[in-house]
Amino acid sequence: MKTVKVEASTTYDILIENGLIAACGAYISTIRKNCKIMIISDSTVFALYGETVKNSLTDNGFEVSEFIITPGEASKCADNLIKIWNALANAHFTRSDMIVALGGGVVGDLSGFAASTYLRSIKYIQIPTTLLAMVDSSVGGKTAIDLESGKNLAGTFYQPSMVLCDPETLKTLPREIYSDGMAEVIKYGMINQPQLLDILEADYDISAVIEICVKAKRDIVNEDERDTGVRQLLNFGHTLAHGIELDSDYTIPHGRAVAVGMVLITKAAIRAEKCDKNALDILTRLLIKNALPFSTDITPEALCKAALHDKKRAGGTITLVIPTKAGECILEKTPIENLYDFVSGAWDND
Amino acid sequence: MKTVKVEASTTYDILIENGLIAACGAYISTIRKNCKIMIISDSTVFALYGETVKNSLTDNGFEVSEFIITPGEASKCADNLIKIWNALANAHFTRSDMIVALGGGVVGDLSGFAASTYLRSIKYIQIPTTLLAMVDSSVGGKTAIDLESGKNLAGTFYQPSMVLCDPETLKTLPREIYSDGMAEVIKYGMINQPQLLDILEADYDISAVIEICVKAKRDIVNEDERDTGVRQLLNFGHTLAHGIELDSDYTIPHGRAVAVGMVLITKAAIRAEKCDKNALDILTRLLIKNALPFSTDITPEALCKAALHDKKRAGGTITLVIPTKAGECILEKTPIENLYDFVSGAWDND
Repeated sequence: MKTVKVEASTTYDILIENGLIAACGAYISTIRKNCKIMIISDSTVFALYGETVKNSLTDNGFEVSEFIITPGEASKCADNLIKIWNALANAHFTRSDMIVALGGGVVGDLSGFAASTYLRSIKYIQIPTTLLAMVDSSVGGKTAIDLESGKNLAGTFYQPSMVLCDPETLKTLPREIYSDGMAEVIKYGMINQPQLLDILEADYDISAVIEICVKAKRDIVNEDERDTGVRQLLNFGHTLAHGIELDSDYTIPHGRAVAVGMVLITKAAIRAEKCDKNALDILTRLLIKNALPFSTDITPEALCKAALHDKKRAGGTITLVIPTKAGECILEKTPIENLYDFVSGAWDND
Repeated sequence: MKTVKVEASTTYDILIENGLIAACGAYISTIRKNCKIMIISDSTVFALYGETVKNSLTDNGFEVSEFIITPGEASKCADNLIKIWNALANAHFTRSDMIVALGGGVVGDLSGFAASTYLRSIKYIQIPTTLLAMVDSSVGGKTAIDLESGKNLAGTFYQPSMVLCDPETLKTLPREIYSDGMAEVIKYGMINQPQLLDILEADYDISAVIEICVKAKRDIVNEDERDTGVRQLLNFGHTLAHGIELDSDYTIPHGRAVAVGMVLITKAAIRAEKCDKNALDILTRLLIKNALPFSTDITPEALCKAALHDKKRAGGTITLVIPTKAGECILEKTPIENLYDFVSGAWDND
């Protein structure tokens, strides 16, 4: 069993092991015993793993109910948040009861927000079933829903009480969704884990890769829980990715947008003589190996316009995550009016 | 200027002075300058003080917009929370912008919840305009909305960046609403401020009374920000008050319900020989002086049934706040099945 301890505003463990899902009840009962648990999941994941999780929870003395959402980003909405609050209230959940989030990032973000706000917070446990959720959403304590005006506009910082990663669940993940997660895995390599880039170019055990990513994120988040400094490293490729996603009206999945965003910012950094050319070669090889895109037909004008719609800008500057070589990035505060000049360098490079 | 410093998870000042509202912009600009501010208020309060606050904010360089709700508890709802999130997003509020909550507890609770969750939290300033909001809602960091299933079922713990109390605004407060606030003032006297009981029996300056209450709550909350221990003292009279409110379908205002709740629990405590009889005399005199009720026609059966619907119970026990004498209360964990026997003592006493 791989165990990663996260010491945020509260301390919790991330457990990584094949087959963990069938034993989840025993691990969860180390947090609290004999209480009510509401499993929040989507219909696809629940059909695959719902019974296994329910049985393990029931066998360990929990009183289990479920709230099932439609798969997809559209479910990460205020309407579902309110429905979950009411479902918890109608089932007479008290502060001593808990939520189990079984699914990907949508389920995790929505469940975490509900858990952090119902009765001003009840405990929740994450069982991420996508690679993206395992390496990204399960560390950092960001919960959220989307609003009409944009993604993740409402949410909280709130830590789960435990995260249970069962890499075997990745076997049922559609190939494209798995690739999407690999974009974030590659991101960890690029920002500060050069040895992960080597591992990813060879054959590897995904459990070990998940552990490296989770530890990398844990170390960054530990330094900056409230997302005001070094945590912005995690946005490598993301400012432009958000632009690509927004411009495509979210028809391009997050991982694919991040893949292209990483390539563009790396090209721009090379053009501006801030980055070693080798970084782009390694990045491109890994994206190809994982069936991820590395180019886009969006114009730099459209991209910058959409990227600046991103909430993460503060005042008149934007913090860019600039690669300097494979496995190293730096943060650079850039005046918003300079963004286009810098980013369009990626097109000159072609 | 009376200043009470609150050191919670974040530190902030509560300023108390007549006429403060007209100078609010200058004080708020000590928190942050030249940003956007959305004033959240209700139509009654905004008609009285909206222009004054807006002018002061505009004069101090803020870009001001407003979100006005219908007065009354029904506005403390999920629908308004979502509308505020969207209004903030549509006005392009960033993490550097702020909310000013101008009004009573409904405005404060709703605004605080919105502020704590929009972009995972932006700063907010409270300008409470009711006595209840000044002495109660402005300290402690509890934000909330009501759900269909009950009051305050969703919310967060989140501190304002500053609280500006202008006691002159109390002059425009309807007499009954003022009385409601006095019920909470008397509560502070009963739980641990015996000298406040003496002040309230004589003539007094309301600014000084607000300061005593705010400090009393500050000291209790400092000890127990997350509401797991001594903070439950603040629930004196409230478990039964919630029952009275629920049973009346919330037609009985909170302050009046608290008044009766305090009398009933004091009578029950005297009957159980846990409390000095003098406590009831003083409590009753102060309630009469402030035009507050001290009896009810609800049956003890109905009261206990409604009170146990209250979310604050955990497992099979309920923590009761029991007076021992005027100006002193203790916490007593009571099995739920013993509640009726204890509480019905209040009726035997009549």
